[in-house]
Amino acid sequence: MSRDEAQERIWTRMCAFVGALQDEITRAIEDLDGGGRFREDLWRHVGGGGGRTRVLEGGVVFEKAAVNTSAVEGRFDESFARKLGGEGVEYSATGLSLIFHPQSPMVPAVHANVRYIVHGARSWFGGGIDLTPYYLFEDDARHFHATLKAMCDRHGPGRYARYKKACDEYFFLKNRGEARGLGGIFFDHESGELEAELAFAIDCGRAFMAAVLPIMERRKDASFTEEQRAWQETRRGRYVEFNLLYDRGTAFGFETRGRTESILVSLPPRVRWAYAHEPADGSEEAQLVAVLRAPREWA
Amino acid sequence: MSRDEAQERIWTRMCAFVGALQDEITRAIEDLDGGGRFREDLWRHVGGGGGRTRVLEGGVVFEKAAVNTSAVEGRFDESFARKLGGEGVEYSATGLSLIFHPQSPMVPAVHANVRYIVHGARSWFGGGIDLTPYYLFEDDARHFHATLKAMCDRHGPGRYARYKKACDEYFFLKNRGEARGLGGIFFDHESGELEAELAFAIDCGRAFMAAVLPIMERRKDASFTEEQRAWQETRRGRYVEFNLLYDRGTAFGFETRGRTESILVSLPPRVRWAYAHEPADGSEEAQLVAVLRAPREWA
Repeated sequence: MSRDEAQERIWTRMCAFVGALQDEITRAIEDLDGGGRFREDLWRHVGGGGGRTRVLEGGVVFEKAAVNTSAVEGRFDESFARKLGGEGVEYSATGLSLIFHPQSPMVPAVHANVRYIVHGARSWFGGGIDLTPYYLFEDDARHFHATLKAMCDRHGPGRYARYKKACDEYFFLKNRGEARGLGGIFFDHESGELEAELAFAIDCGRAFMAAVLPIMERRKDASFTEEQRAWQETRRGRYVEFNLLYDRGTAFGFETRGRTESILVSLPPRVRWAYAHEPADGSEEAQLVAVLRAPREWA
Repeated sequence: MSRDEAQERIWTRMCAFVGALQDEITRAIEDLDGGGRFREDLWRHVGGGGGRTRVLEGGVVFEKAAVNTSAVEGRFDESFARKLGGEGVEYSATGLSLIFHPQSPMVPAVHANVRYIVHGARSWFGGGIDLTPYYLFEDDARHFHATLKAMCDRHGPGRYARYKKACDEYFFLKNRGEARGLGGIFFDHESGELEAELAFAIDCGRAFMAAVLPIMERRKDASFTEEQRAWQETRRGRYVEFNLLYDRGTAFGFETRGRTESILVSLPPRVRWAYAHEPADGSEEAQLVAVLRAPREWA
């Protein structure tokens, strides 16, 4: 056991929250999908603890949806431990991570995560929610960001602006000079007052459904062409590039010898890479790319 | 200019060889394809020099084929320079890199590369050829490895065994516990006697066609099912994982601010990720995976 008494109290509540949130979200997603069902895989972690991976594939709305929880313990490699901050090599980590890749290019992909990490005397929260549409619906972007801002504002001024900026900076593909999507919020190493940060992480997890489900409801029945579907698959290539080249969550997963299939379930189900593909000037596809190259304020 | 006189002589001959090999291979591939045509993009490198990228997409045999050359100069970041060996931060690099992703799952994907890198007083050759089939044809594996072994043996004993082992070790996906393909040869930091190493790199480049084209010729007209095509696309996911998570060439390209589209042209055109996909026991797909998990000797 590598958690002190105060950490243990937070850990227990975070684990309980994460488990309940997984149930709530998977129920809501099955309802929204109206056909697909999640399968569940329980797995054990080499260092201790384990996870519960739930994946829906080939649904009506969702081509792939994953809602994963884990609560693991172990020992970092020395060099990774130094890079991460904290002290010693023993750690515990618990959290929920989700990703939705819809069938339709009119429905955005969504990713969210909340986590609590204990590393020696230090422990901290991290997480976030971000939206990756393949076509730009400004109403959706405004609703999404406004919902997150309202949630952040309940926890004090400045959080939204800080986390929105961090999100734009984090989900950025250096190799492309583009953001992965329209951003959202991203926070990490929040270790100030653990009770307050737990409350924020819980609110963040709960805000997910209000921020995302109305967008999916209103876009899921829109028609689309084969060309629009091809565009979605090409843009999904950027998603893969980000997750494998830059994502710290993926690196953390491999570094701590997590379960490969639970880590890489984030990758989109069908993807294309076309050489030097550029959307036509003035097209809807070009409008999206313009926003990815120059992120905007939406709330 | 960061090359001394001896290096300059080698550099000039390597550049000339690489240019001629590009022409020879692109002609042979267009002939074999019988429909597709390469497009060519010339690009300038930020530090000096540039490249010639040739890509064929949507051919009859080849879904994507790229044969790229470059001859660039620049300055490494300090930390990258230390990691790489050599001295100072000025470098020159020239080489040819190719990748073929066939339409048919019965035709293997192929990658090859030869390069000469100058870093201060040190300069060295690197490269290799490796085969990634989606179905196992033992005849193909034997022909491929035997051709490479015969070429290596002309340059002294022990090369093939050493480079075959290095290839199995290099093209290995730690996250999957699998080799990317059936291997081939891989060499790096060969700096003993530059004339001899240049001769080897040239022979390696030339061996490519003899090692690969007969396999493509005899497999290209085989019929296949939709399920076999889906398997190819799923296995291509591993190719993407390797190139983005582990490949030093991709990292070198980004590190030296190479042209993104010329680096990522290595990625397969259409790819799938299915959660926890395992081929049925005893199937042809399972036979391939068994060999990837326990690489064999083929020559």
